[in-house]
Amino acid sequence: MEKTSFSSTQGKPIRCKAAILRKAREPLVIEEIQVDPPRAYEIRIKILCTSLCHTDLTFSKLDSGPLARFPRILGHEAVGVVESTGENVDGFEQGDVVLPVFHPQCEECKDCKSPKGNWCTRYTNDFLSNTRRYGMSSRFKDSSGEDIYHFLFVSSFTEYTVVDIAHLVKISPEIPVHKAALLGCCVSTGVGAVWKVADVEKGSTVAIFGLGAVGLAVAEGARLRGAARIIGVDLNPEKFEIGKQFGITDFVNPTLCGEKKTSQVINDMTEGGVDYSFECIGLSSSMEEAFNSTRPGSGKTVVLGMEKDAMPISLGSYDLLRGRTVCGTLFGGLKPKLDIPILVDRYLKKELNLDGLITHELKFEEINKAFELLAEGSSIRCILWMDK
Amino acid sequence: MEKTSFSSTQGKPIRCKAAILRKAREPLVIEEIQVDPPRAYEIRIKILCTSLCHTDLTFSKLDSGPLARFPRILGHEAVGVVESTGENVDGFEQGDVVLPVFHPQCEECKDCKSPKGNWCTRYTNDFLSNTRRYGMSSRFKDSSGEDIYHFLFVSSFTEYTVVDIAHLVKISPEIPVHKAALLGCCVSTGVGAVWKVADVEKGSTVAIFGLGAVGLAVAEGARLRGAARIIGVDLNPEKFEIGKQFGITDFVNPTLCGEKKTSQVINDMTEGGVDYSFECIGLSSSMEEAFNSTRPGSGKTVVLGMEKDAMPISLGSYDLLRGRTVCGTLFGGLKPKLDIPILVDRYLKKELNLDGLITHELKFEEINKAFELLAEGSSIRCILWMDK
Repeated sequence: MEKTSFSSTQGKPIRCKAAILRKAREPLVIEEIQVDPPRAYEIRIKILCTSLCHTDLTFSKLDSGPLARFPRILGHEAVGVVESTGENVDGFEQGDVVLPVFHPQCEECKDCKSPKGNWCTRYTNDFLSNTRRYGMSSRFKDSSGEDIYHFLFVSSFTEYTVVDIAHLVKISPEIPVHKAALLGCCVSTGVGAVWKVADVEKGSTVAIFGLGAVGLAVAEGARLRGAARIIGVDLNPEKFEIGKQFGITDFVNPTLCGEKKTSQVINDMTEGGVDYSFECIGLSSSMEEAFNSTRPGSGKTVVLGMEKDAMPISLGSYDLLRGRTVCGTLFGGLKPKLDIPILVDRYLKKELNLDGLITHELKFEEINKAFELLAEGSSIRCILWMDK
Repeated sequence: MEKTSFSSTQGKPIRCKAAILRKAREPLVIEEIQVDPPRAYEIRIKILCTSLCHTDLTFSKLDSGPLARFPRILGHEAVGVVESTGENVDGFEQGDVVLPVFHPQCEECKDCKSPKGNWCTRYTNDFLSNTRRYGMSSRFKDSSGEDIYHFLFVSSFTEYTVVDIAHLVKISPEIPVHKAALLGCCVSTGVGAVWKVADVEKGSTVAIFGLGAVGLAVAEGARLRGAARIIGVDLNPEKFEIGKQFGITDFVNPTLCGEKKTSQVINDMTEGGVDYSFECIGLSSSMEEAFNSTRPGSGKTVVLGMEKDAMPISLGSYDLLRGRTVCGTLFGGLKPKLDIPILVDRYLKKELNLDGLITHELKFEEINKAFELLAEGSSIRCILWMDK
């Protein structure tokens, strides 16, 4: 890809288009906004394409509580190119292809330096700030000069955004940018959960609750690990056809299980339960079913879904005592700067299948149509192109 | 140890003393019983000494439900010597020192052959039978000829018992038998949970809920792994003094935490939570506190306690999503025949400290006093000697 020249905008505010959420449950509004130059440890990037995920949809409907903020620029699965860098930025330069990621990696704290997990003690506990090092300070202003809220430290529904270096990964320009965008959330979360958190081995049996983009990425991760049987659980039978591309071998529709619970059906199918189950919906009832679907002695359940109503999970204490494990993970246990380049490499080697996840491609201006497609379950991932 | 000669009893019933639970909550009664010869895959052993554990106490109070059975011979932490073997018994001979274990290892099923976990698919799901391969068939009869129920496939509160080979481990005669008895339940459960299930590393922080014999064994396992800080949680301040011998560095008494929860106190002490927590009480509320005491990103909780009222555990779904793990284990994830000889070896090398766990030694006839000592919290482990 040819490097773009940005010399005329460096150090100055940029005026560009953005899709703004003015009010919960209302369509986004394309407006002209001002994007300030990056401050220290920040990079301003030109978004090339963005996809949208259920978390964007969830937040677009949130009308109260500390997480609901307006006006706001949503979006957190995208690829961009570096337009300019603030002070104290090493390792990035103008024209680099970059992936902004909601999950931070400061590279300096105890947990970032530990080989275990992907928590960043320094930053991960804060989901409410606008910019990482400057609290509620925003880099976006609307035409009336009002600050616009950022979202998950990314805000990709805009032609330009400003991202802290703790949330930015430089990637190879060889990967098609719309494929790479999926590594910003769904694919990393799903594949990471299989490879890093569960560490699924060849010949294992796997059950996946929810066959959205994350669930399909779990299947893809399990397929690449050589799982013997991958059981997909979803209410929508069309998901099975899509799932086959990602290695799903069996399908369970909970509404067609009669009096049996899904976990009982899976137990019967696998002579006592699967080795690994993954919850990719975000419902405590489905987390419990995922748990009950695993084999006593060594069964492991990985929870990836964010419980929609923050409900607790209730586990039978004897069922747990019988040698089962439950763990939760954000961003699939991956350390973004370390692991995303590995996923890019696996894609370039034609091992990792990302193609079937993109079901639609639209112009950025058609963003509200993309939200509708996701809400009605017609799309897995819809790519929005900024310049097409 | 000199081998005993049993040639006169082989193949015949043996009459001997046993402590029988005739009714829930009543003292055990020392009676003469008849112990039948072992059938195929069984071994009749002469008990040398036995200890008693909270599970014996719990079952002695159970007056209804499928687990309550009378008359019964309790006891499951003991060491014995092989008196005679049934058909199809390889690897054991008269005079061998053996440890009966409630947790089976058939050595033939998928899970016994797998390096993961310690589940025995073939046997572990059955806790109700008397003898392993013969369902409700009993080897004990009282003086009126009535069958006496076995307990956990061991029944050690008797001079002679019959045990299936799936529940029997041959051990080195070099280890003092009363020390070895503790490997039949509490020490293996505690040390195994640290070494096999949690896999605690040098420099880790650890919290232990409940400082009975299992909790102290957890501390000992963590001490041997080089944990930097081992926090004991117990209502009884005397446990801290005992705990120091096993490496406990800090003590939290939940009744002295004021308005703070124990988990908050531990979070404050450790700048955000311990690396590992262990629940050794069997209370869902304490399991939840143990979970909330762990560090986000990589914290791991191991549940060892059997919930007294079979209550479920409720986990905050967001707390789990922040990279925490919860697992349950029986017998510390150890495969008895493989791992107990390793623990014996560590004791003989003077690494594993078993000495401080034995607080009392009594004659078998004083068994009801031993129950009282355990119930009132005065003893950690009381050894009952059969021949002294």
